[in-house]
Amino acid sequence: MVRHKVMMNVDLGEAYGNYKCGPDEELIQMIDHANVACGFHAGDPLIMQRTVALCKQYNVAVGAHPGLPDVQGFGRREIKMYPEELTAMTRYQIGALQAFLDVEGLPLNHVKPHGVLYGMMYRDRETCKAVYAGVPKGIRVFGLAGTCHEEVAKELGLPFTAELYGDVKYNSDKTLVIDRKKKAWTAEETQKHIREQVETASVTAINGQKIQLPIGEHEVSLCCHSDSPDCLEIVRAARSIINEFNQKTFG
Amino acid sequence: MVRHKVMMNVDLGEAYGNYKCGPDEELIQMIDHANVACGFHAGDPLIMQRTVALCKQYNVAVGAHPGLPDVQGFGRREIKMYPEELTAMTRYQIGALQAFLDVEGLPLNHVKPHGVLYGMMYRDRETCKAVYAGVPKGIRVFGLAGTCHEEVAKELGLPFTAELYGDVKYNSDKTLVIDRKKKAWTAEETQKHIREQVETASVTAINGQKIQLPIGEHEVSLCCHSDSPDCLEIVRAARSIINEFNQKTFG
Amino acid sequence: MVRHKVMMNVDLGEAYGNYKCGPDEELIQMIDHANVACGFHAGDPLIMQRTVALCKQYNVAVGAHPGLPDVQGFGRREIKMYPEELTAMTRYQIGALQAFLDVEGLPLNHVKPHGVLYGMMYRDRETCKAVYAGVPKGIRVFGLAGTCHEEVAKELGLPFTAELYGDVKYNSDKTLVIDRKKKAWTAEETQKHIREQVETASVTAINGQKIQLPIGEHEVSLCCHSDSPDCLEIVRAARSIINEFNQKTFG
Amino acid sequence: MVRHKVMMNVDLGEAYGNYKCGPDEELIQMIDHANVACGFHAGDPLIMQRTVALCKQYNVAVGAHPGLPDVQGFGRREIKMYPEELTAMTRYQIGALQAFLDVEGLPLNHVKPHGVLYGMMYRDRETCKAVYAGVPKGIRVFGLAGTCHEEVAKELGLPFTAELYGDVKYNSDKTLVIDRKKKAWTAEETQKHIREQVETASVTAINGQKIQLPIGEHEVSLCCHSDSPDCLEIVRAARSIINEFNQKTFG
Repeated sequence: MVRHKVMMNVDLGEAYGNYKCGPDEELIQMIDHANVACGFHAGDPLIMQRTVALCKQYNVAVGAHPGLPDVQGFGRREIKMYPEELTAMTRYQIGALQAFLDVEGLPLNHVKPHGVLYGMMYRDRETCKAVYAGVPKGIRVFGLAGTCHEEVAKELGLPFTAELYGDVKYNSDKTLVIDRKKKAWTAEETQKHIREQVETASVTAINGQKIQLPIGEHEVSLCCHSDSPDCLEIVRAARSIINEFNQKTFG
Repeated sequence: MVRHKVMMNVDLGEAYGNYKCGPDEELIQMIDHANVACGFHAGDPLIMQRTVALCKQYNVAVGAHPGLPDVQGFGRREIKMYPEELTAMTRYQIGALQAFLDVEGLPLNHVKPHGVLYGMMYRDRETCKAVYAGVPKGIRVFGLAGTCHEEVAKELGLPFTAELYGDVKYNSDKTLVIDRKKKAWTAEETQKHIREQVETASVTAINGQKIQLPIGEHEVSLCCHSDSPDCLEIVRAARSIINEFNQKTFG
Repeated sequence: MVRHKVMMNVDLGEAYGNYKCGPDEELIQMIDHANVACGFHAGDPLIMQRTVALCKQYNVAVGAHPGLPDVQGFGRREIKMYPEELTAMTRYQIGALQAFLDVEGLPLNHVKPHGVLYGMMYRDRETCKAVYAGVPKGIRVFGLAGTCHEEVAKELGLPFTAELYGDVKYNSDKTLVIDRKKKAWTAEETQKHIREQVETASVTAINGQKIQLPIGEHEVSLCCHSDSPDCLEIVRAARSIINEFNQKTFG
Repeated sequence: MVRHKVMMNVDLGEAYGNYKCGPDEELIQMIDHANVACGFHAGDPLIMQRTVALCKQYNVAVGAHPGLPDVQGFGRREIKMYPEELTAMTRYQIGALQAFLDVEGLPLNHVKPHGVLYGMMYRDRETCKAVYAGVPKGIRVFGLAGTCHEEVAKELGLPFTAELYGDVKYNSDKTLVIDRKKKAWTAEETQKHIREQVETASVTAINGQKIQLPIGEHEVSLCCHSDSPDCLEIVRAARSIINEFNQKTFG
């Protein structure tokens, strides 16, 4: 069961140079936490600067969203790196974002690794340790409860927020089904998927099996993606389901 | 005339992945200030991490060495960027370095832009303002006295260190002769070039003209490059000339 | 006066990884020549492969569209490179495209440099010579009549097609007004701009002056951009103006 | 048993911008086949241009050496790419090299994938098929006999040259022990390792086991690396062992 008001996070600032990604300006008005791309899988210094300013304007908490060094693959192609490299690249990206936060007088709210790096981390404890070793002391990490994410965060004393996934399906082992490009869902599918997670702390996996999401006492944030087709509709629906749930449960 | 003990700075951490650059471990033992590459023209996160640790070990003050985004051109090909981009890319690189300094508990000592960016800045006030706008408040910048470097630093309230150049020739307008690849000098040439600057605050330009270096009351740091042929010999000679001068002048 | 049927060219394949650019599949049905990005300013191997296949499907002639090595700046930030580098990078990009043409059994129709490189070439003869030196013998180049483009092509014996610009304004010296991001025009403005060029071989520059376009006996191709806002509408209007003109003039 | 004169191949043109790699000019005088880096894991257009010209000067046969898109990792970090991407990136790189060969009037002698891509290909048939699908018809590939390399080459009708490895150790399953950075061997170790392979078509694996190298009737080329410490000494010794063997065996 969810013990805290459910919050929402979206990856923002995932444009690159002239290339656009999601409708950041509209999304930002509906969310609580932004995961800001740090230039390795997406984003560039100018986009980061503007995204952080936008987050300030809309009073959205800013997290770092470090990714694998691969703009062409959008951080969704697995790259085998040494642990020491993973730590260093995480520090580098968080530090770069911190510079823009400093200019705006904002704190770093959290760190959430991007794409396949996130997946490599819940599947492999060494990868998880290497990345989290690059997170500054005491900074909150967002991850999947019941996986290495949660366990390693605990070991390292990093506060942990359990994520739910609004627009990503689950395997029966509680891991996510990650695609290089997001596929379209119907609004109905999405809403059912979100409602099930928020209201029951469980989800129906792609094989039809009902699985418990072991979120325990953790804070909870529901993630949606800005590069999903129809992302605005999904985020709008998710916001409304969450608001309704939070109202009903926490008054 | 030089009013302060002359210090020495060298660009370090300019390797990239498997590619080596200068003999950093030997150079670092002879210098006061390291300008650490930040991943745009050279360096990568792992190299930055190791270079900052090395600086701590040898008690060398660490400065950020932001460059144009061009590893292939080693930051020595002019790229025309918007002022807002220049500011953002400077913030990004300094922030990235700051993360490694934080891990080691070291302060950021200074900022010195790299290569052709440095040159674009002393030739063009707008470029200089855009880059310095990305330097955190109160952080010292290294530059050429008598150019936009000094003037804009003053305007923005940034402390300023005047640089001398041990292994780069001067044009008669006090600007530097920048090559994409460093050429070899004889040890004698170099020593004469360094001694002249340190002892007389003037230098013989490539056209044979003697020019005054308007270093005024500023702190002074002599720059040598780790990618010069025979850089170890140059730095060793420079160190010895400087030590002798400092001893004779300041006791 | 225009002596040949006017043709149309558009830059295609300017997506990058997951990032989209223009509506290639719709544009390709309305044009004669595609300038296919070669991975330096935009495009990547997979996108090139698909774009060339698409050109074959719609029977559109394929040209190489080499650009400066700068995806983040979309090839619209001037980079100062050595002539030898310009030649080598042109050969590299054309060769890469040729591999995909070979697979489809298509010939290389032409070469048209991209963005600011195109502009650097009509402003500077040395740059133009360096780039054209990378074009295989006998291959047609697309450029601006009355500039270095035409003169150097003649010197090197490269066939030349004079370009008109449907969605770019002209300076009074016959050069183009290049922006990093395309701005919106009204449909009316665009149509007037195209009609004037096609029907009178002249254009009204941004300062209001009427200038002659010295296209002489050359073949003519009108260029529109896939990253212009409303590009589909522009291309549709251009196609219709051209068809009408060709019909009226050449029967 | 070896049925053909043993030849030697080395990876050349693995510098990048200002960064040097091996002593190409000295190595090239001792080898038969050059594997020329194509800009993805190392090399850039200018370096390719110069390397191909050097190969012509020394009459060395030129092969393409396509790698994963990762200069920072020198093509030695595994990246998971789609088969279609692997095919496209192979075509792209070979086409780029072909352009420089065309300028010099040289044929493409062979294709040899680089680093971890080579390893991924002998371990995984799908990867091997995807890469070889990007090799132009009838072009020879260099690979490890008795692995997917040989089998897929046969399937696709590509001529095959079996490689021996002068400066890389073998696992007992006949695969290679690949490091991100080459480690130093003694001259004696290397010579014993080379002599054993050339004279007996077998090798002692790292676990001490003697393994047969199933080179059959294939042509044979011994590979040495230009980024091995003491590579010149290794290549010189290898050349001499090979010459002696060829003389003794084929007269």
